[in-house]
Amino acid sequence: MMTKMESEQRIIRLQTELRAKGIDGALIIYPIDVYYFTGTRQNATLWVPADGNPLLLVRKSYSRAVKESLIEDTRPFPSSKEFPALFPDSVRKVGITFDIVPVQQYNYYAKMLPGREFVDISGSNRELRSVKSTWELERMRESGARLSEVFTQIPSFLKAGMREIDLAAEFECRLRRAGSEGYVRMRAFNQELFQGLAVSATADQPGFFDGAVTGRGLSPASPHGASLEVIEPNSPVLMDFTGIFQGYIVDMTRIFAIGTLSPEFLHAFDTALSIQRYLVDNLKPGAICEELFAKSLEMAEAAGLGGNYMGAPGENAKFVGHGVGLELDEFPVLAQGFKMPLQAGQTIAIEPKFVIPGQGVIGIENTFAVTRGGGEKLTPLADDIVFL
Amino acid sequence: MMTKMESEQRIIRLQTELRAKGIDGALIIYPIDVYYFTGTRQNATLWVPADGNPLLLVRKSYSRAVKESLIEDTRPFPSSKEFPALFPDSVRKVGITFDIVPVQQYNYYAKMLPGREFVDISGSNRELRSVKSTWELERMRESGARLSEVFTQIPSFLKAGMREIDLAAEFECRLRRAGSEGYVRMRAFNQELFQGLAVSATADQPGFFDGAVTGRGLSPASPHGASLEVIEPNSPVLMDFTGIFQGYIVDMTRIFAIGTLSPEFLHAFDTALSIQRYLVDNLKPGAICEELFAKSLEMAEAAGLGGNYMGAPGENAKFVGHGVGLELDEFPVLAQGFKMPLQAGQTIAIEPKFVIPGQGVIGIENTFAVTRGGGEKLTPLADDIVFL
Repeated sequence: MMTKMESEQRIIRLQTELRAKGIDGALIIYPIDVYYFTGTRQNATLWVPADGNPLLLVRKSYSRAVKESLIEDTRPFPSSKEFPALFPDSVRKVGITFDIVPVQQYNYYAKMLPGREFVDISGSNRELRSVKSTWELERMRESGARLSEVFTQIPSFLKAGMREIDLAAEFECRLRRAGSEGYVRMRAFNQELFQGLAVSATADQPGFFDGAVTGRGLSPASPHGASLEVIEPNSPVLMDFTGIFQGYIVDMTRIFAIGTLSPEFLHAFDTALSIQRYLVDNLKPGAICEELFAKSLEMAEAAGLGGNYMGAPGENAKFVGHGVGLELDEFPVLAQGFKMPLQAGQTIAIEPKFVIPGQGVIGIENTFAVTRGGGEKLTPLADDIVFL
Repeated sequence: MMTKMESEQRIIRLQTELRAKGIDGALIIYPIDVYYFTGTRQNATLWVPADGNPLLLVRKSYSRAVKESLIEDTRPFPSSKEFPALFPDSVRKVGITFDIVPVQQYNYYAKMLPGREFVDISGSNRELRSVKSTWELERMRESGARLSEVFTQIPSFLKAGMREIDLAAEFECRLRRAGSEGYVRMRAFNQELFQGLAVSATADQPGFFDGAVTGRGLSPASPHGASLEVIEPNSPVLMDFTGIFQGYIVDMTRIFAIGTLSPEFLHAFDTALSIQRYLVDNLKPGAICEELFAKSLEMAEAAGLGGNYMGAPGENAKFVGHGVGLELDEFPVLAQGFKMPLQAGQTIAIEPKFVIPGQGVIGIENTFAVTRGGGEKLTPLADDIVFL
């Protein structure tokens, strides 16, 4: 359980940020942000003034929020009549995360607080959350250990001739028994993921997912992850799954093969490991995100695999790593255009992968913490391809 | 797979609606709405002019969208320079679903289309989607049959002494093998659900979820569904799960008990069945949503169970049924304040439930279609409590 000190330190960081930007306070509306600052993910809105004490207003369930909330002033959500009086006239400029709050919610608060200026704090909120505390790093390590343990069970049930969906079902069952919470939070409006991808025959299919691999899925309505196709021998089986414990997500990928893999795949896998090694060595405070991606792309190109890097030719994603924590798509992103330097305590899933159309996908993924000594691996399992 | 005629008919209905409201066109941005009108759930935006042909603009994956899209004019998403030229000056008033589109997305399109007025079409879009076509009803029937089949397997693995999470894992595994797509779409900003609830000891815990039952979940970060608590004999085990096939969700609940249940529970269960019977008899075009709810509450009160209806005393949800289809929380809602009349072809999960604090939860849930003869049951399984 989150401690009161965690909540206090996070709120102090937010308040420091607000004061530096001349914002009088933040209305935290998104449930996952609310949880991050308060310790409760009930249906509630958090008001954090730049100076003074935060206030948690709870819609449902109030009785449960009171038990969990680390915010001293936790109240039932006020009526529309009472709401405005909670905000003194001195509050002129209010921060809201425009990236995730729907227009209807925004309009509701704008109506409640007439005459105020609303500004977007999405970027700074995401950056703040990207740096994990000691307690959060402990949670991430625990999530990594537990997910890794489930991965060790894969050889006991992976068989040639089973459908991708059956492989997914077997893995997901063990993941849940191990206590994974299942629901993967993604911040991006148009993204969704159901626990992970168990894909082989359909691993090379392009898709909406902002990653190297999407899979075909079961229908055009749910076009990601496992399909009804059968797993064949001598072809890479890609297991890319999240584990979620106390809300903290880790993300990892391993490759399995029943039989052997072609030299082309083995060459691509070695290249993925080299890229991972380079990135881990450089996962240090101050390293520039887009430079890490650019260097990884260079390495892929040098190996003759530039066109296959992070997607099929023409469908290549322009990143090699993404922040992960309470959401799967946190900051920072090791991507073209991300000029920010890494900070110690950020946690990043690094996933160099190669898509060979008509043949399959191969690569590696682990979650790391940024430290002065380079990436600390949070998903403690050997990287090797597992041949069955 | 969705047919071209489905897509065309849905777009014609939307255009009729737009013209009636004097709106020049709709920008459909939310992926599930995009799927509904186009047959593809890639990352794309759909422009539907009040008159003329729709235009699908695809971010990712274009190659996959081209294969799936039922919209003749499907193109790659244009650059910010090219975008405005796609919209003639005659387009003055543009509809957007304010309930789900984030402020950042809204601002992007507002910037691309300067001088235009943007209006909220959330309500009419949700109403439009609530009425299912013959083809959609076929999908819902299929989803209902497949989910019901998985429910019949429960007695083979439910045992006293197992943890709620183990029961969830066993069920979810079979649900996935049966082809359920897993990811449950909810439209409400602050709601989320992982497949369903397998709860007994913690079934009575209040929570953020807009329903009678939330469960404790595995941590305050993921506070819904199964917990680590053990299932005891002589206590109701509530299995409330979704099944999702070709995107279409059905929702059902059954009660299991190892041993016996107290007369208090049996009385509450009989009351739930009576309420369901009343509602099914009246699930006809023209019936007023809030009147159906009010009558159901009266029946609960007459049985001496008003305080326990749809939640623990003080935490009662004010509804007894919710629309279901591509999302779990569709229109209509059989709730206080919903004055709209039912329409033939709407599909509604009806779920009278009673929460007895400290003891457990009992009730029933099935998904029905509104027909002139009353509710057609789409989840064909006996309603009885299964005693093991």
